[in-house]
Amino acid sequence: MDPATLRARLDRARAAAAQAETDALLISPGADLRYLIGEAGGSLERLTTLVLPAGDGVPALVVPKLEAPGYAHVPTTELGVEVVTWVDGEDPYRMVAARLGRPGRVAVSDDTAARHVLPFRAALPDSRQTLAGPILRELRMRKDAAEIDALRRAGAAIDRVHARMGEWLRPGRTEAEVGADITAAIVEEGHTHADFVIVGSGPNGASPHHDVSGRVIERGDVVVIDIGGPLPDGYNSDSTRTYAVGEPRDADVAATYAVLQRAQQAAVTAVRPGMRAQDIDAAAREIIAEAGFGENFIHRTGHGIGLEVHEEPYIVGGNELVLEAGMAFSVEPGIYQAGRWGARIEDIVVVTEDGVEPLNTRPHELVVLEP
Amino acid sequence: MDPATLRARLDRARAAAAQAETDALLISPGADLRYLIGEAGGSLERLTTLVLPAGDGVPALVVPKLEAPGYAHVPTTELGVEVVTWVDGEDPYRMVAARLGRPGRVAVSDDTAARHVLPFRAALPDSRQTLAGPILRELRMRKDAAEIDALRRAGAAIDRVHARMGEWLRPGRTEAEVGADITAAIVEEGHTHADFVIVGSGPNGASPHHDVSGRVIERGDVVVIDIGGPLPDGYNSDSTRTYAVGEPRDADVAATYAVLQRAQQAAVTAVRPGMRAQDIDAAAREIIAEAGFGENFIHRTGHGIGLEVHEEPYIVGGNELVLEAGMAFSVEPGIYQAGRWGARIEDIVVVTEDGVEPLNTRPHELVVLEP
Repeated sequence: MDPATLRARLDRARAAAAQAETDALLISPGADLRYLIGEAGGSLERLTTLVLPAGDGVPALVVPKLEAPGYAHVPTTELGVEVVTWVDGEDPYRMVAARLGRPGRVAVSDDTAARHVLPFRAALPDSRQTLAGPILRELRMRKDAAEIDALRRAGAAIDRVHARMGEWLRPGRTEAEVGADITAAIVEEGHTHADFVIVGSGPNGASPHHDVSGRVIERGDVVVIDIGGPLPDGYNSDSTRTYAVGEPRDADVAATYAVLQRAQQAAVTAVRPGMRAQDIDAAAREIIAEAGFGENFIHRTGHGIGLEVHEEPYIVGGNELVLEAGMAFSVEPGIYQAGRWGARIEDIVVVTEDGVEPLNTRPHELVVLEP
Repeated sequence: MDPATLRARLDRARAAAAQAETDALLISPGADLRYLIGEAGGSLERLTTLVLPAGDGVPALVVPKLEAPGYAHVPTTELGVEVVTWVDGEDPYRMVAARLGRPGRVAVSDDTAARHVLPFRAALPDSRQTLAGPILRELRMRKDAAEIDALRRAGAAIDRVHARMGEWLRPGRTEAEVGADITAAIVEEGHTHADFVIVGSGPNGASPHHDVSGRVIERGDVVVIDIGGPLPDGYNSDSTRTYAVGEPRDADVAATYAVLQRAQQAAVTAVRPGMRAQDIDAAAREIIAEAGFGENFIHRTGHGIGLEVHEEPYIVGGNELVLEAGMAFSVEPGIYQAGRWGARIEDIVVVTEDGVEPLNTRPHELVVLEP
């Protein structure tokens, strides 16, 4: 990762903290850390944290001595970050507190574990403890050109997996068997690993977060396939298509799916700078509700994506966030017929200067695989 | 998982909470949840928590409606656990708070993310928030017969991988190539995945938490191989052996390794009920220090293992915990010669009624692989 890019992100994070009247950010291993220093680190029981003062203080990466080699490639000198190691028996929370003096407000990154959150609070008893998420999301949800290019590559990689679905999705195989083949293909197509593989066949398709099961796929099944994972640069793919194994058994599939496809298309088309996140959700939801399936669309329309599969902005009713160029998120309405079948269509899209760029381009029709 | 076992664990957790003057435990997805209800759950941004009152209240699994199917196999009725679902737009933290009334003290599980820890604190402003770890570790570090059997199976599985090391560890291959083969073998031998694969060749062996790199293994290298992962039942393996690719290049390897082997053996032999955790650490450390390598043993001697790779009890100086039958942990001293080579020997052991049972039984000598 280019040190100048990281340096600029650190500077923006410090400025955003200052604007939020927050004296320092404490960033745990994970996507936030990767965004700021180019290395996600490992999340073990010993404390690792990036101490990022809003003002003049020197940022520090506080890390257990024996885990420090994992950060050797981070250009800490160019980033102006001091590396502070600690060994078993020392109190790293006091070390952090000592660097901060008497801050009024300190924000911890959202994925910091309670085992660190509470000791930080105890070591800084006079500070208000808040979440760093609202500060960092203002940076992370506005992707730069390199990030969007990374998401484009991730989208193309998962599209290549969907294109091969006919190799694996056949009657007589279990969801788990199909899932194992998809998992291998996700890696073959360039991901470091499969982060999630949902193969929801027949009634299982009506459960949006089903993963895989021992259910044997039958001719006539409708199957929801929702898959993704990270590329080596950390940026994630996530795309859903719905397949039919031969002609669908249920007579209502074609008409219902047509409503879903129209709703998904309408939501994608609605994306442009100046629209609100809730408007995109409404664009899909209104079409589904008008067709009488409002009760069958039981989740929000989408989520942001980047270094995490789920991040800001969330495309959900009540979210008045105004969309800007560079924001990336999923558009994934679904219609679920409990006990029978479900369908979902999901593309990742990026807001452009004057509209939208979908990053998944596989056909949106119900794909009937002839077994 | 047997419902009676889970029910007993829930009852013990409630009793332990009461004894710790804690009104309720809030348990996030992860190992704690798996221990208590047999399902680890997923850790996404929406709140899932097991609300476990210390007293008479009814326990509840609070879960997003669309993630509830993932818990369908949990015998909630037999466990006396009410399932409470919520949908986007509702405030699950207030729902939890409303169930608890006005508790004096509420403990959150150690791996609860800050994004949930802080909203819980806000929803329960008059309660003291503490960590559930000190309460639950009293249960989890005392393994029952079924858990020890699970760890035995995990130990045997990783031993089978070490037994095959000569297939992969050869001069001219990179650490990453060897690591990929080990990763595949870890799965072949029954693990769900490889949780960590350390191939520390030559100078990289002197960095205890090194994973793999592009370094090409050379004849004469000493190589630290520290590997493990979970079996499908959730219990983990973790074992380290040190190999030499042909005769070691450095003249000091044989004598130094002999010290390490003696230290590891002494620490394992010292394990029995009534000893303290720190005594086991000291048993290894004294031998290494007397031989003049005290500064080269830069980490604690071990960590507990079970549903997590690192859990209580930690085998570290200052830990006065008295060992009891059923505790399981690693014994893994190391000696590290910065810039040249390192060595570590790691077995998982279980405290028995009158001594110790090692769960890893591969030879402890430096294994010289003839290339």
